Amino acid sequence: MIKTDILIIGAGPTGLFTVFEAGLLKLKCHLIDALPQAGGQCSEIYPKKPIYDIPGFPEILAGDLTKNLLEQGKQFEPGFTLGERAETIEKQEDGSFIVTTNKGTQHHAPVVAIAGGLGSFEPRKPAIEGIADYEDKGVEYIIKDPEVYRDKKVVISGGGDSALDWSIFLTDVASEVTLIHRRNEFRGALDSVEKVRELTLLNKINLITPAEVKELHGDEKIEAVTVVKDGEATKIETDHFIPLFGLSPKLGPIANWGLEIEKNAIKVDNSLNYQTNIPGIFAIGDVNTYPEKLKLILCGFHEATLMCQAAYRIINPGKKYVLKYTTVSGIDGFDGTRKEAPKAVVQAIN
Amino acid sequence: MIKTDILIIGAGPTGLFTVFEAGLLKLKCHLIDALPQAGGQCSEIYPKKPIYDIPGFPEILAGDLTKNLLEQGKQFEPGFTLGERAETIEKQEDGSFIVTTNKGTQHHAPVVAIAGGLGSFEPRKPAIEGIADYEDKGVEYIIKDPEVYRDKKVVISGGGDSALDWSIFLTDVASEVTLIHRRNEFRGALDSVEKVRELTLLNKINLITPAEVKELHGDEKIEAVTVVKDGEATKIETDHFIPLFGLSPKLGPIANWGLEIEKNAIKVDNSLNYQTNIPGIFAIGDVNTYPEKLKLILCGFHEATLMCQAAYRIINPGKKYVLKYTTVSGIDGFDGTRKEAPKAVVQAIN
Repeated sequence: MIKTDILIIGAGPTGLFTVFEAGLLKLKCHLIDALPQAGGQCSEIYPKKPIYDIPGFPEILAGDLTKNLLEQGKQFEPGFTLGERAETIEKQEDGSFIVTTNKGTQHHAPVVAIAGGLGSFEPRKPAIEGIADYEDKGVEYIIKDPEVYRDKKVVISGGGDSALDWSIFLTDVASEVTLIHRRNEFRGALDSVEKVRELTLLNKINLITPAEVKELHGDEKIEAVTVVKDGEATKIETDHFIPLFGLSPKLGPIANWGLEIEKNAIKVDNSLNYQTNIPGIFAIGDVNTYPEKLKLILCGFHEATLMCQAAYRIINPGKKYVLKYTTVSGIDGFDGTRKEAPKAVVQAIN
Repeated sequence: MIKTDILIIGAGPTGLFTVFEAGLLKLKCHLIDALPQAGGQCSEIYPKKPIYDIPGFPEILAGDLTKNLLEQGKQFEPGFTLGERAETIEKQEDGSFIVTTNKGTQHHAPVVAIAGGLGSFEPRKPAIEGIADYEDKGVEYIIKDPEVYRDKKVVISGGGDSALDWSIFLTDVASEVTLIHRRNEFRGALDSVEKVRELTLLNKINLITPAEVKELHGDEKIEAVTVVKDGEATKIETDHFIPLFGLSPKLGPIANWGLEIEKNAIKVDNSLNYQTNIPGIFAIGDVNTYPEKLKLILCGFHEATLMCQAAYRIINPGKKYVLKYTTVSGIDGFDGTRKEAPKAVVQAIN
């Protein structure tokens, strides 16, 4: 049984920053994440994507933000249960919680903070028979590393920016690019649509519309897809089939924890400290909802910080916490490290 | 008359970040600040102080944070009225406001956001006759640049960390350091107190307690102070007199605007968007108060962001704003610049 002060479900930016704010209050955190690494969406889906609206960073790559947040919290020695999904929660008689993952790992904490982002992202999967069997065997729903497709044949399906832009991008990488969409119209940016048409004329993209992929073929891995256009089926050889129909947020098992849910998010009390309808369980970051909620990373940081104060009071009943500024009082890491501003400089503000 | 969408009173970190968030909503900002430069407390009092609790920055100097925030917002071309203090506010028939500074500069905006930090900081000044006449003539309440005291005689008074630490620090800089405190006990860190006693034994600090500075002398500038100890007056020659009694927050003229005030801060509705009791006037950052309020810069960022959404609705009644992620839709500056993520990378997330 892993014991901690605040059990954080979700190791994205909000969860990671919680480690730091909790640490300032001498509270220890443990994070559970279904993904195999910390960073959440930032590391999994778009590590190389620049973010422009983190305060103080005119531009920062999502992966670097994760790295910085890990660095900022590391002296508070967070624990991690990665690659496992929080499945069940049981309230104990003393008000604490035991959270068990899909792999049976048990965690015990007086406070649970759900920082699950937009649930776990699930790619929207097309309803093609047997597609699950080909996952990681040539069927991918997210392009993480374009180099995987170097000199390969790829079939992309979808009608949004993602399908359009990856088709364009992969013409320089893959040996053959086929783009299939069930309508003639695309939902993407005009210039991307133009570019696709242009590349189609140059025979660099094999554009098939209106059409749908109906069957997948291959033994060990995918070898071909059957495309149906105007009722007529064609088999196209390919090394990869990449349906890019977007991601859909999903709360997963947490949806069954008895929490008040609204619009696929967890309702919290924003007039205080982002507690859910179950005392001791908080929801912070993109996973929560309240009047005027904005699903922005910077809001998650604020929510995490206020939540930690409430966690402190739950864990230290009757004890009064006086906010100290890190710049004035420094930071004492759980690992024995100490960070502080040069004394004379600090003291100038008193 | 200066016209803008959101008139921001206070150009500290919260005010500066508002420029960016407002810009994303195509709203233009103008900032008024009593200080001669942007950055608020960060630039004025402790530009070289490291801050540890800005999310994503394990450590950042306050001055660099200001610089980054200015950079982040500059494409939205904020206007500035610096070195002037917002004095009066008049509500117009159409619900907009005219704010006039102490120098008579008039500003007209449908939305006013007070981001005045801890009011304007005012140093606590000792009640010594004529002290105001010596300000900037040898009397300083804040030490900005220790080099000013190189090879000079200084008299410091105060009993907190600031007085202690500067006394210690200046022994290496000034030709003579006198520390005066009205009690024998100091409120500072134990090790600082020890260090002061040690330096006193070494004759590097002239420690006089319990004592008070009662008179100031000098024609053009300060030349000496009269110190009274046990009812006995002594005149001490000095080039500088530095009373370090701390800063006291002060709302200034804003306290007379009819806003609901609590604990020297402006009460706002944190369950929505940090509006004050006067519709159209918001208060964000350290200047406001609400249940569970924490006076942290990162909270100001969140408050500013939610406030901008409310401002948008006031300025564009009936128009619906759909939150777009900067990473997906890019940023169009008012100056014609455009920032966007490399297309293929962005689109991977859709």
